[in-house]
Amino acid sequence: MNHFAMYGKLTARPGQRDALADILLEAADLLKSNNDCYLYIVNVSDDDPNAVYVTELWKDADAHAASLENEEVLASIQRGRPLIIGAEPIKLRALGGKGL
Amino acid sequence: MNHFAMYGKLTARPGQRDALADILLEAADLLKSNNDCYLYIVNVSDDDPNAVYVTELWKDADAHAASLENEEVLASIQRGRPLIIGAEPIKLRALGGKGL
Repeated sequence: MNHFAMYGKLTARPGQRDALADILLEAADLLKSNNDCYLYIVNVSDDDPNAVYVTELWKDADAHAASLENEEVLASIQRGRPLIIGAEPIKLRALGGKGL
Repeated sequence: MNHFAMYGKLTARPGQRDALADILLEAADLLKSNNDCYLYIVNVSDDDPNAVYVTELWKDADAHAASLENEEVLASIQRGRPLIIGAEPIKLRALGGKGL
């Protein structure tokens, strides 16, 4: 059974990337107690000053979906939403490798 | 100090995705003994039947570059190269989160 992985590219309003990254890092803290969430890493790119990339890896797609119903996670998403002007998720199936 | 992360999208020749994924999974095995390599996860996408995505996370860019000089890793790259018709790396800086 392949785990659910996702690269989430979020484009922030100009000047709001770091504020958005901070909110996503708080969401990552909330997910530390979620055993079905294996990875939630917040990245930035030197090639795109407004982009934040979240590397996600979950037990399965259901676990990912369920996390979006968690009140605290929802609250942080609500706080981040005004800062976001674009979202490009790439949904993947993790086959294996180091760190899985 | 941010760790070096990368999403490596590789496009395989039609019908060669799984063969390429197998070679990359072997490379992942080789990297299990490399303490500077934190993640090397091989993924596929249901949205693109010819794509393989590698999620990488390294201590730093130098550690990533050094790995490309390892003979065994080079050999697996050589075996994979004929199967690859496109490569789109997205280089990132990992700020933090779960799994880092």
